Amino acid sequence: MARCNVYIHPTSLVETEHIGDNTRVWAYSHIMAGATIGANCNIGEHCFIESHVTVEDNVTIKNGCCLWEGITIGAGAFIGPGVIFTNDLYPRSPRLPEAADRYRTKEWLVPTHVAEGATLGAGAIIVAGCNIGAFATVAAGAVVTRSVPAHALMIGAPARRRGWVCVCGRPLTRAGAELSCPHCQRMFVLSGDTVVAR
Amino acid sequence: MARCNVYIHPTSLVETEHIGDNTRVWAYSHIMAGATIGANCNIGEHCFIESHVTVEDNVTIKNGCCLWEGITIGAGAFIGPGVIFTNDLYPRSPRLPEAADRYRTKEWLVPTHVAEGATLGAGAIIVAGCNIGAFATVAAGAVVTRSVPAHALMIGAPARRRGWVCVCGRPLTRAGAELSCPHCQRMFVLSGDTVVAR
Amino acid sequence: MARCNVYIHPTSLVETEHIGDNTRVWAYSHIMAGATIGANCNIGEHCFIESHVTVEDNVTIKNGCCLWEGITIGAGAFIGPGVIFTNDLYPRSPRLPEAADRYRTKEWLVPTHVAEGATLGAGAIIVAGCNIGAFATVAAGAVVTRSVPAHALMIGAPARRRGWVCVCGRPLTRAGAELSCPHCQRMFVLSGDTVVAR
Repeated sequence: MARCNVYIHPTSLVETEHIGDNTRVWAYSHIMAGATIGANCNIGEHCFIESHVTVEDNVTIKNGCCLWEGITIGAGAFIGPGVIFTNDLYPRSPRLPEAADRYRTKEWLVPTHVAEGATLGAGAIIVAGCNIGAFATVAAGAVVTRSVPAHALMIGAPARRRGWVCVCGRPLTRAGAELSCPHCQRMFVLSGDTVVAR
Repeated sequence: MARCNVYIHPTSLVETEHIGDNTRVWAYSHIMAGATIGANCNIGEHCFIESHVTVEDNVTIKNGCCLWEGITIGAGAFIGPGVIFTNDLYPRSPRLPEAADRYRTKEWLVPTHVAEGATLGAGAIIVAGCNIGAFATVAAGAVVTRSVPAHALMIGAPARRRGWVCVCGRPLTRAGAELSCPHCQRMFVLSGDTVVAR
Repeated sequence: MARCNVYIHPTSLVETEHIGDNTRVWAYSHIMAGATIGANCNIGEHCFIESHVTVEDNVTIKNGCCLWEGITIGAGAFIGPGVIFTNDLYPRSPRLPEAADRYRTKEWLVPTHVAEGATLGAGAIIVAGCNIGAFATVAAGAVVTRSVPAHALMIGAPARRRGWVCVCGRPLTRAGAELSCPHCQRMFVLSGDTVVAR
């Protein structure tokens, strides 16, 4: 695949052929063959992206993140520094004789999807299978143990919903079922756990 | 020492002569002289293993882990991505004039042992001196502030015991003093804080 | 600038000219042009220091730390392994069309200062704008969401003050407004939230 205006820092290893235009990969990072990286992404230093991972366009991944097989990142998401993903709910060393059997196939692998425009704050930890809704924000240091609805603001360990956030990233103000952004004036309606643009 | 079938990624630095057969070290990792690594281990990317550390056979260490002097890892343990060890209970910069005295000898150093078959989940933090019992599981994001008994399941910050786990990694079901694994049918007996195979 | 007795590991990249005498930079670390590093510092492996960061003399930075633009570190501070700084309170991917406007200038950037002699424990997370007072200690795994007074001992997520610490790093014993160190016998007086040497 022709690469148009892709920057790869000389200390990094990009083994995939599937990397979109205008994407940049900074120092000491490793992207394995078989990963798919979109256009116009920015991948920080000391990152690792495993085979079969998909990262869509316009994603920012800060330093020190590992994206394991099973992780998929929607367009325009922000993955903060030191965010930790997982893909196994009962990890043992596959080299431990009592656990080796479980790792003979990929049945142990639990995928996780981060939807478009979401933010995972610095050092957040995502338990395998907890999907992150579009434009949700997970606060720095939160430990996500359940799937997160779109536009939710999640804080703490385990992470609890403490509000709702706008596509622009600011907290929404609520009046009954109506949510509005004091910053950009976008309006939303809350119905149950679902926030939709008005 | 002859190395039999050891794989070291070309970007990594392995300065120890003590590395067991069939062990693999992935990209951008550094193992110092004087560390001892067992056979059939898998050491992920962006790891650091300091002098005097011992890692026994069949251990899996995922990306971004630092094993400081004083850390020892038992056979078949799993060290998840971004797990953080410590070896000093009152850290200051040794270059701070008011703290320099403390660092003239190694008296400040507090060792930590992770016993065989244990799992440290992603991003777990282990306070110096908190030993981890055999086949215990520390959940992702837990902060361990006390030693952990064998087979314990530890969750939260500070980590509390929330159950018991099997050698295979699954939660055990309890009936009185009897514990059994719904997955692999192994049986255990609980006496006080001690779980033993039946 | 002449560099006197500076050690830079051959795998590291130090692009700044402003690095003090006797400072050491270990493997796989990257210090950008325009950063200022003091004398007699020790910077661990897999670190990243961005342009415009200032690190004063005698600082110890352990492995895996990223210092973003806006972070300043006072003399003799200790930054533990895997400490995570942030500099944005409402992060989104700057490549997300709905967020791009916010990143056209540096108005989003919120600075954080760590004062002299402070300790940030392993894996601590510092929310942007939460300054750390002189000789404060942030415990391993704490998530700092407010500024921290000098000599405070901060524990938990969110971090709460659980005591006071001496310049030497040990907990202080309190008797009324008087604080004393059982280890080094230094004396302090507490007035409101302010600890001063007696």
